[in-house]
Formats: sequence, C-alpha cells, structure tokens
Amino acid sequence: MVQTNRQILLASRPEGAASVDNFRLVQTPLAPLAQGQVRVRNHWLSLDPYMRGRMNDSKSYAAPQPLDTVMIGGTSGEVVESLNPKFKAGDKVVGMGGWQEYATSDGSDLHVVDTTHVPLAAYLGPVGMPGVTAWYGLNRIIAPKAGETVVVSAASGAVGSVVGQLAKSAGCRAVGIAGGADKCRYVVEELGFDACVDYKAGNLYQDLKAATPDGVDGYFENVGGDILNATLARMNAFGRIALCGMIAGYDGEPIPLKHPQLLLTQRLLVQGFIVSEHIDVWPQALSELGGLVAKKQLAYRESVAEGLENAPTAFLGMLKGQNFGKQLVKLI
Amino acid sequence: MVQTNRQILLASRPEGAASVDNFRLVQTPLAPLAQGQVRVRNHWLSLDPYMRGRMNDSKSYAAPQPLDTVMIGGTSGEVVESLNPKFKAGDKVVGMGGWQEYATSDGSDLHVVDTTHVPLAAYLGPVGMPGVTAWYGLNRIIAPKAGETVVVSAASGAVGSVVGQLAKSAGCRAVGIAGGADKCRYVVEELGFDACVDYKAGNLYQDLKAATPDGVDGYFENVGGDILNATLARMNAFGRIALCGMIAGYDGEPIPLKHPQLLLTQRLLVQGFIVSEHIDVWPQALSELGGLVAKKQLAYRESVAEGLENAPTAFLGMLKGQNFGKQLVKLI
Repeated sequence: MVQTNRQILLASRPEGAASVDNFRLVQTPLAPLAQGQVRVRNHWLSLDPYMRGRMNDSKSYAAPQPLDTVMIGGTSGEVVESLNPKFKAGDKVVGMGGWQEYATSDGSDLHVVDTTHVPLAAYLGPVGMPGVTAWYGLNRIIAPKAGETVVVSAASGAVGSVVGQLAKSAGCRAVGIAGGADKCRYVVEELGFDACVDYKAGNLYQDLKAATPDGVDGYFENVGGDILNATLARMNAFGRIALCGMIAGYDGEPIPLKHPQLLLTQRLLVQGFIVSEHIDVWPQALSELGGLVAKKQLAYRESVAEGLENAPTAFLGMLKGQNFGKQLVKLI
Repeated sequence: MVQTNRQILLASRPEGAASVDNFRLVQTPLAPLAQGQVRVRNHWLSLDPYMRGRMNDSKSYAAPQPLDTVMIGGTSGEVVESLNPKFKAGDKVVGMGGWQEYATSDGSDLHVVDTTHVPLAAYLGPVGMPGVTAWYGLNRIIAPKAGETVVVSAASGAVGSVVGQLAKSAGCRAVGIAGGADKCRYVVEELGFDACVDYKAGNLYQDLKAATPDGVDGYFENVGGDILNATLARMNAFGRIALCGMIAGYDGEPIPLKHPQLLLTQRLLVQGFIVSEHIDVWPQALSELGGLVAKKQLAYRESVAEGLENAPTAFLGMLKGQNFGKQLVKLI
C-alpha cells in the first residue's frame, strides 16, 4: 500500500498576476482510513479559471482558499480503498479531490461514473462542471430561439465549445471569440460554429460586426473587459447576457464597462451565475451532455499536462489562454 | 371656437447639455376636425427624462424626435370637440398630446379617466406612466421579499417615490437616494422611507453603507454613474437591479461601470426596461395605484410650471434635479 501522497499547496497569495511561487509541492504521509472514508487515486485533475479567484483574499462568491492547504480542484479517478459502504475499490469516481495524487474523503463529494462510453477525463469537461455551466447559461439564461445569434467568448475552451455546439443544435447562428487563428479555425471547422472572431487580430469590434450581421441576441461571457465592451455594442433589443466569467480581471486590472447605457437602451438582461448553485439542473444537463458525447455528437478537445508537478505551470498558461480546449493534468 | 394653437417644437438637437435654444414656441391655426378626430384642450403636460433621449439623433429604444415637430409628451385634459363616437365633449382624457395647448387625435392614444377621486394631474404621475414604471420594475424585476432592502435613486421623483412606498408595503426596508437635505427629509418624513442618502452631501458610499446595514437586495436605478457604482458595491448575492433610467449620461458624459465583476461575483440580475413595452401590466398596475391614491395611501408631490412657454425651462431644470416630485406644466 502506498504510504506517501504528493500535494500542491497554496503557498502565498498573488500580488497582481499569479506565479509558480504561489504554489508549493509537498510530500505527506497517508494516514490509515477512518470508518466511512474513501481513498481515491486521482487520475485527472481539472484546471479552471475560478481557481484564480480563490487564490485572492477578497470578497467573492466563495471563501478564499486558506494558505498552506491543498489547492481546490475537480478530479476523476479510481477508488483504491473504502471503509464507506457506498463505494468499493475499482469504482470510477468524480469528486473534488484537489491538486494531489490521493484524496481521502467521506464520500459526500464523490459520484460513481460509467466509463463504458464516456472517457473518465470527459467527466471533468463536457460531461462535468464546464459542460453543465454551458448548458445552464445557454438554456436557462440566454434561452435562445431558432434563428437568433449567440456569441460566446473563450469559444475553444471547455465551456465555450459546448455553448456554441448547443446553440447550433438549437437552430441559432453560433459565433465564437477566441485568441489566434488556430483556435478560430478549430472553432469553425471542428466545432461547427458559423464564425469565429480572433480577438488578437485586426479590429475586434469591426470583425465581430462582420460576423454578426443581424446583431447579437444572446451572449455567453467568459472573459470581460474589451471583449464585453465590443459585444455589448452589438446586442439587439431584448438580448440576454449570461455572465459566467471575467478572466480579464482576475489579476486585478480594471475592466470597466464603458457604456452601461446600452443595458437600458437595448433593454438587456444580464445574469451572473455560478453553476454549483444550480444543482437542480445537473442531472438533466449531465444526462443530455453524456448522451451527446457517447454518440460523438459533441466535440471537445483537451490540453493535457503530465504529472502533478506541472499543474502550476499549466494553470498559469491557461489563465493566459495558452491551453487549447479543456486544461487537464494527468496524474501519472 | 378657438382658432389658434400654441406649440413648442424641437428646433435643434443639443450638443452636450440641452438648452432653451433647442426649442421654439409657435402659434398655428387649428384646422377643422376630420371625421373620426377628437380635439383635446390639454390642461397638464408631463415632463419626463426620456424626452431628453428623444432629442438626440442617436440609436436608442425610440426613434429620435424629428426636428420642427411638436415635442412629444404625455398630457391630460378635456375633450372640446369630437367627431369620434368613442369620445364626447367634456370627457376627461389622458393621452400623448405633446407640448401644445390643443391636441388633435384619431383617439387611439386617448383614455377617458374618472376624476371623482383621482385628480386629473395624477394620471400623469402616480396613476400614469411614472407609477406604472415603478410598479413594473419593483414587482416584475426586483420582486422583493419581506425583510429585504430596496434602494431607489431619484427617490423624491415621480417614479422613485412610488417605488419606495410600494417596497414598504411589501415589507421591505426602503432606502432612497436624493439630492439635498430637503428632498431627503421629504422622502423619509412624508413618503415613509426608512432612510434617504443625500448624494450631494458627505461620502455617498459610506452614507449608503450606513443606511443599508444588511446590504441591498433590490435596486431601482434612475440615475446611473457614480450612484450606480456606489450601490453596486452594496449589492447582496442574488440581488436584482431594475434599470429604468440613466439620467447622469443623457448629455453624453461617460458613465462607466467601474466594477462589472460584481455582477458576476454577487450573481446579480440586471434588467433594462421601458414600461411602454409591457402594456399587459398596465390595467392591473393602474387599478392598484389608482386605488391607493384615491384612499390617500400613496403620497406624491408635484412641481408645477405655469404656462406652455415655461415648459423648456422647467424641463431643463428637471434634468438637473431642480424639480421636487413630478414635474408638470399647467397649460393655462
């Protein structure tokens, strides 16, 4: 039986941009399980933008992560030992195991999953939190009608890629915003969006205008800042904005909304949301998303870093958009 | 029979702030009525912030008012001549008669009203468009629960005064924002709000914080700019913002939203709206508001300018907050 765990702790809080110095890799002994506990060997660690918010010591929707504790994070893996009657060794599970190779849990965060048709890693992507995030924002906030135009930022990412594909299924024109020609090509050619605007090239507003000749009815926002300002100026009357993330401001840069008057003159709806607060929709959303992935009707892409020790670098790269699709760490 | 009408036309579009030079008073002959037409002697003209938006030649929710036409505006008055079977001389009516002493209409904008218990002028205030605006934003967007805190800006005005009184009736803590000690005293002592913050005195954010010890659950916005920025920073999780007006930006000044991240971190709902697009609620709202006014359970105040020729000055004063309560012009 393995006696040692490897973990990454939050060592310090970022001042401005996060850096590798904010993290610390430690080795810790594994204590014997207590009654009711489950031990999971994490195979996959999910890296997500929300983690950046937790690193700050500021008021947000979640308490800051305490210093010197294991970084929070979604994981999927296999039960290796269980003193909990709901789980047995060999079960494939998803949970909130954190940035570590072994997680010890009372089972309350764990769900057994079926990997017959859906890969274990996909439960951290299109059939996990990112997928449900896309599903909720699109179906419950934007609520698109066939023929409308839906725009999503970070379109090649874990959430954005699902938003656009679901919007296409709903009969909408799906337009992505992404950084770089490669990502934009992927968004159009492999994900099937109608168009994709490269925010790093040319004039964002003019390019978005060309890609949305009938204006924008629904906007799924992951980025904020200049991208939000440009898209807001394209919104049609009675448009809906699902506010899911504002990664542009995570390091503390000001990202003012330049023309809030547009919210009034176009009678827009804006709704900020956190998918973990809408657990009522998860069963339906996961069932639909799992079915689409199993039938290969929902495309997705993963960026995989190998080894726990590479998680900080992969995380920092993701915050800069260096990943391509869902950022995962394979815990070897 | 009177043969001459007096009218105020939009003479030119403002560059920056509006001025009296943008208006022109003219005398015009009254043509004989055609079949189906109604002639109304306007007794009261309503002056409202939305009119400022119509003076610009820019994209908004309504087409710009054409130059050299009678300024748009709500009116109440009395039918003096009718070739329309739905109206007879002596009927008291509300309509969109515009800035003129006599309005000639096909009757489609006119509604006969009962002045037994509700004064004719009140149909332009608490029992008219401003009242329904308050009713809609509070009940259909903010949807307050007893015990919550509701804040409204321009609290002593035609809309804000109704918002706060309805919020009190719903069991909420009602907090106003208004300009000057007199208005704040009126808001608390005569309208019955729990508190009122004078945005012209002291530190707006600190004063608002003191007045909203449990944060803000619902915000009814008439002003925008600094006031919106301060209130946004007090919003509780799952707060709702009814966006009704942004008078701070009507002359074209930038009024950026400084921290749009709060919309996400507090999971806020923002909904811009125009009450004329929600005609389905008008009968219910007017019935409730009329009942409250008739029973003297809804207080309101009017600023009355005398004579059509004084409408431009009164209008410009209202845009600067120099009115106190609903701004009307009595057409002598």
